[in-house]
Amino acid sequence: MKILILGGAGMVGRKLADRLAKDGELGGKPITGLTLYDVVPPEAPAGARFPVACETGDLPADGETDRLVAPKPDVIFHLAAIVSGEAELEFEKGYAINLDGTRNLFESIRKAQYVPRVIFTSSIAVFGAPFPEAIPDEYHLTPLTSYGTQKAIGELLLADYTRKGFLDGIGIRLPTICVRPGKPNKAASGFFSNIIREPLVGKEALLPVSEDVRHWHASPRSAVRFLLHAATIDGGLVGPRRNLAMPGVSVTVGEQIEALGRVAGSDAVALIRREPDELVSSVVAGWPRNFDTRRAIELGFEADRSFDEIIQVHIEDELGGKIG
Amino acid sequence: MKILILGGAGMVGRKLADRLAKDGELGGKPITGLTLYDVVPPEAPAGARFPVACETGDLPADGETDRLVAPKPDVIFHLAAIVSGEAELEFEKGYAINLDGTRNLFESIRKAQYVPRVIFTSSIAVFGAPFPEAIPDEYHLTPLTSYGTQKAIGELLLADYTRKGFLDGIGIRLPTICVRPGKPNKAASGFFSNIIREPLVGKEALLPVSEDVRHWHASPRSAVRFLLHAATIDGGLVGPRRNLAMPGVSVTVGEQIEALGRVAGSDAVALIRREPDELVSSVVAGWPRNFDTRRAIELGFEADRSFDEIIQVHIEDELGGKIG
Repeated sequence: MKILILGGAGMVGRKLADRLAKDGELGGKPITGLTLYDVVPPEAPAGARFPVACETGDLPADGETDRLVAPKPDVIFHLAAIVSGEAELEFEKGYAINLDGTRNLFESIRKAQYVPRVIFTSSIAVFGAPFPEAIPDEYHLTPLTSYGTQKAIGELLLADYTRKGFLDGIGIRLPTICVRPGKPNKAASGFFSNIIREPLVGKEALLPVSEDVRHWHASPRSAVRFLLHAATIDGGLVGPRRNLAMPGVSVTVGEQIEALGRVAGSDAVALIRREPDELVSSVVAGWPRNFDTRRAIELGFEADRSFDEIIQVHIEDELGGKIG
Repeated sequence: MKILILGGAGMVGRKLADRLAKDGELGGKPITGLTLYDVVPPEAPAGARFPVACETGDLPADGETDRLVAPKPDVIFHLAAIVSGEAELEFEKGYAINLDGTRNLFESIRKAQYVPRVIFTSSIAVFGAPFPEAIPDEYHLTPLTSYGTQKAIGELLLADYTRKGFLDGIGIRLPTICVRPGKPNKAASGFFSNIIREPLVGKEALLPVSEDVRHWHASPRSAVRFLLHAATIDGGLVGPRRNLAMPGVSVTVGEQIEALGRVAGSDAVALIRREPDELVSSVVAGWPRNFDTRRAIELGFEADRSFDEIIQVHIEDELGGKIG
């Protein structure tokens, strides 16, 4: 089984590649080759018992997706995207990568006349406020960002190309990934991770919103589990509605902090400094708070069990099991 | 006020042009010029007191939408589309006209740096079965045709370009147009009109489905009224959700036939010949039956009052007020 990961240098792409290297197989079939592709050089995972190719390029460039699809990978993980903030600032670039790149990929597969499983990572950004307290599977997509628009279009294309038999797609709408490893970043959603990750290593973190803000989370480990399940699920069970909101954990910021206290103690909690930011607060007010992801759960997608578990996953996977 | 109609040779485009010629104004502003554009030569409406240009071309061709937008029309009606059956058979052609043509138009407007009102005709084909008995405004779009997919993508682009201030768009999802003038055609939906139009002129019509089939209708006159209202409505009242399901009349085929009996008598009804067609029946089983179009109604869009009225409109507008 040959696997291609587009966006292989990103956080989720790297963790997915590591997991594939560790498992050596996918859905019971041995992996015979893995290609990691990104705009910056991806790093091959350690310990892979199969050949790994690392490639860089510009996804929407002429002929690029034809070239990537030419070896006919059996499974394609399409994680490549210009993120929300950048897609909002750079309108043309966002559409070029997130829409044209995705459509080119699907067109290259159609023209190659073979039917790989394609896993497309969509986002809860396909939803736009106002929405009900828990968004059901049948809720309409009214994105309020160009990124969300591009992801929603990718979902529609994925479903149509699958319906026509040109590819075998599964789209998964990821919750906000938390705890995101690495350094604090300036994404509006960054604080959800910062207020956990930084105190766990004895550093201060800023909290720009009130504690009653509720949001929808999944650990990086869950994200990888979703991707693997999407890669191996029986498409017949999914039916024509190929895009699924993934299960997650809905908690308030206050509940996040309580979980941090339970896992790491009050010293960690004391490192969170309130610094209200009206801009961040108003952006976050338009984000989904909770979902009713019945379909995905019935199809066997499994969320983290609690926010405590999300913190434990971070400690195990990023901090070697120890709190510093 | 300068107006551009893309798809100006189609049935709705012609009726819209006729109405504009008759009115001489739109939203209280005198019309100073009208351009009709289509892939086949459009016909100028009779009696227009303003210049009318009729143009033909290939919408997605290089530079075509730039050329159409160059005179900076104040209002653009984008009705041009490859219809459902053809878009399903000709995958590339459908995407070229319905997706690329629409996106090119929006891009040309963005680059021209002016903000016209753009009215985009979408369709109830953006919905795919299964759905509730009456589809609410918040129901998700899961099209089961390439045409429906392309219309749903057009809606998303329209909303994003509007949100960014690049154009001022309103998308309207038209019900099935009934009674469609002209000859019987082979569209799966053709019988909804055939069983009314043909008996009204003393001709036999075939009914391929059972009388309990329910569907969602609007007269051509309503369609034109929707377009004019969409052209002049205050965008601020519409808000960021720019795509609206239009109100219609939900009736069963049996109720259509009863209305025909009331309007034209039992001789007309006797001209309907049952000839069950399993293929048509199975296609139609996947179509919407009814909608709850609360938003559009609140925003002042008005449906026909009954199917009797839909038949009367046909008699007035197509048969000179007389049943033959």
